[in-house]
Amino acid sequence: MASVQLQDLIATLPAGAVVTDPDVLAGYRHDWAKDPGAGTPLAVVRATATADVAATLRWAHAHGVPVVPRGAGSGLSGGATAVTGGIVLCTERMRAISVDPVTRTAVVQPGLLNAEVKRAVAEHGLWYPPDPSSFEICSIGGNAATNAGGLCCVKYGVTSDYVLGMEVVLADGTPVRLGGPRLKDSAGLSLTKLFVGSEGTLGVITELTLRLLPAQPPLSTVVASFADLDSATEAILAITAALRPAMLEFMDSVAVNAVEDELRMGLDRSAAALLVARSDAPGAFAAHEAELMVAACEKAGAIEVFSTADPEEGEAFTAARRFAIPAVERLGPLLLEDVGVPLPRLADLVSGIAGIAERNAVTVSVIAHAGDGNTHPLIVHDPADAEQTARAHRAFGEIMDLAIALGGTITGEHGVGRLKKAWLPDQVGPDVMALTRRIKDALDPTGILNPGAIL
Amino acid sequence: MASVQLQDLIATLPAGAVVTDPDVLAGYRHDWAKDPGAGTPLAVVRATATADVAATLRWAHAHGVPVVPRGAGSGLSGGATAVTGGIVLCTERMRAISVDPVTRTAVVQPGLLNAEVKRAVAEHGLWYPPDPSSFEICSIGGNAATNAGGLCCVKYGVTSDYVLGMEVVLADGTPVRLGGPRLKDSAGLSLTKLFVGSEGTLGVITELTLRLLPAQPPLSTVVASFADLDSATEAILAITAALRPAMLEFMDSVAVNAVEDELRMGLDRSAAALLVARSDAPGAFAAHEAELMVAACEKAGAIEVFSTADPEEGEAFTAARRFAIPAVERLGPLLLEDVGVPLPRLADLVSGIAGIAERNAVTVSVIAHAGDGNTHPLIVHDPADAEQTARAHRAFGEIMDLAIALGGTITGEHGVGRLKKAWLPDQVGPDVMALTRRIKDALDPTGILNPGAIL
Repeated sequence: MASVQLQDLIATLPAGAVVTDPDVLAGYRHDWAKDPGAGTPLAVVRATATADVAATLRWAHAHGVPVVPRGAGSGLSGGATAVTGGIVLCTERMRAISVDPVTRTAVVQPGLLNAEVKRAVAEHGLWYPPDPSSFEICSIGGNAATNAGGLCCVKYGVTSDYVLGMEVVLADGTPVRLGGPRLKDSAGLSLTKLFVGSEGTLGVITELTLRLLPAQPPLSTVVASFADLDSATEAILAITAALRPAMLEFMDSVAVNAVEDELRMGLDRSAAALLVARSDAPGAFAAHEAELMVAACEKAGAIEVFSTADPEEGEAFTAARRFAIPAVERLGPLLLEDVGVPLPRLADLVSGIAGIAERNAVTVSVIAHAGDGNTHPLIVHDPADAEQTARAHRAFGEIMDLAIALGGTITGEHGVGRLKKAWLPDQVGPDVMALTRRIKDALDPTGILNPGAIL
Repeated sequence: MASVQLQDLIATLPAGAVVTDPDVLAGYRHDWAKDPGAGTPLAVVRATATADVAATLRWAHAHGVPVVPRGAGSGLSGGATAVTGGIVLCTERMRAISVDPVTRTAVVQPGLLNAEVKRAVAEHGLWYPPDPSSFEICSIGGNAATNAGGLCCVKYGVTSDYVLGMEVVLADGTPVRLGGPRLKDSAGLSLTKLFVGSEGTLGVITELTLRLLPAQPPLSTVVASFADLDSATEAILAITAALRPAMLEFMDSVAVNAVEDELRMGLDRSAAALLVARSDAPGAFAAHEAELMVAACEKAGAIEVFSTADPEEGEAFTAARRFAIPAVERLGPLLLEDVGVPLPRLADLVSGIAGIAERNAVTVSVIAHAGDGNTHPLIVHDPADAEQTARAHRAFGEIMDLAIALGGTITGEHGVGRLKKAWLPDQVGPDVMALTRRIKDALDPTGILNPGAIL
């Protein structure tokens, strides 16, 4: 029965678009979250155009087949975990882009990587700010689906702030165009923004109209090490009170040592915490802001403070921070957290996480987009050790409980996916869950779109 | 029957909250759009707390009574036009605010005026950017309901970009909290942004959490007059290609003369167009940007270019631009447009509007937030002259048709309300209308919330 139905889809789509080779399917069961609950899909559809996405959804809608939309598969919450008997619908082959320097917008297909978008617009002297650490491997479509963040968000906001319009295919296969290359548009409901961050549960994004900024000015960079967490968090609050840094990143001792093991760049292995802060204020103002940040770190009792106006030298420290997740991962497989709190609660979150790690006897390394209160506690565990893995999962949940108790969020930029959905009701409450369900049911009445994600 | 039901509501709410005095009701029939189709409400509810809003909606939901939410009543699209037999639910008495300088956020109730929010946060050295021309008389709740814009949006974005969270009461009276004081939050659907711009059709906003910026630096101002529209639009494109102005405003000859009639500030009455542009770049960069803007205007053939680094002198020209609508209104009652186009089509829009005015033999003065393509054609007419009024209404529609044909929007910042809803399907198409209807029906199944607005 399923194979007869699938023949219809194969006949409808371009040759080669539907893949059923088990070896290929195996590569599409997981995203980077490596969800142990991943199923085996009936087929993978590699869409090359909106028409392919529309045809796939029309077919799936008619036959009640689940569809898991997938960008580059770099998601960290299991939002693209395959469902047994379903379709994995990939947009990785939809890679067109056009840039309009006059309206400072780009129209992009979802399969382009974030880094490719940045490079294409840079050729026109323009800048697409959102910069997940994974920007070289994550897709712009996935960024929109998860409302991705990054390092510069502390000053420049998140993906949603840069999406002016989109083409999205609804659950029944109807493509609709929302918004457009206009900074201002109050015509009707804010549907564009609703689809940003909806993690493939309301529709499949097939095109984005992105707002761009003029090229970022050269950055000044401050790196400071601290003997304890309190002085580091004091410096963070002092910096954000004095100015809006273009980046303000935190690494704890475990992360610093893991990065230094790999990169040998002379980071202070004895430090309890390292901050990397940057300013992109124009001209002499960058140096001025760097001085303010240096002063804030020194006043907070930093062991050592280093400042450079050389953008490449600064980029090396930024790259070191971006490398923290893979570096810590060499200590063992990670459960990767993404909790955020209002900035005044950051110290409570970090110290609370240390307590959770101790009580559960697991290693938890904390790295953070400190300036906006978004942290990535990395829980190291050995999946072969069932007892340790159970403790790691307990810590994973306790960290989310703590973030919620501190008025925070279970996910600042990765999305809820499948791994975090059990905690979403605790954060938002039953009435918001009911509201979410009403919208989901209105837009996807047969429930074929990414079933099991968010809800 | 209705009066028995109303007694229930009166008994539930604080004394004096429900007003039925016909003289008072008369003042709540219209917003500034002066919609001739306005009805007479059963009562006005002046809410003082979320509980009042919730009780009113529970009652209205139970009895199927329409509710028109209303902020300060300064809306220009008839979004707060009263419905006969319904309730006008005012939030003007909900006026609390608390500012948190550490997270750079403010929690505000909807009844505060935009200017009051600006003043309260300025005491903490902070800035709430969105600045409708009506900022001294429009409410922050109404700003959120319409996704209001303003003059600084060309650089700083619109209301939606500054709303991080809210409390909103749903159609059945259930209050829910969405988002919070966090720049990053990917937990669940982007519901906060969905309610921004929903014009009271999905819920009633009772509290907003607003993102704030550090105080705006002092502004440099450039004023340039042009002998024809082509050279003015050439200057606009040259300025926006060179930099991101903090303001870039346009007035045509009718507006310049109307303003000069009232303010006598020495504006060039012979000019076909006047531009007022401002830079808030830090320190010497403001002067640098002002020089670039002066050069762009001169190169485009400006008659006269004036530049000042004195913020108060610059504010006088900005105030003159803000005064354009009341000044032109002294020529006669206005039909006030709010169409926007992608910037490269601005000249086509402005010249097309001139043709529409001529064909319909009506005076249309064009003022514009030129830097973001959002224009306010002001159609002067005499309501006592039925034939002229009919021509004015025809021009009103033709201007929206033109904006749609140019890839633009029927409303950049005022909202659809009741006056523009007939054109919304032409802009967004039947599939987006159906999607809008599905969301409306899911959130307001009995259709009590602002019936007749948007849909």
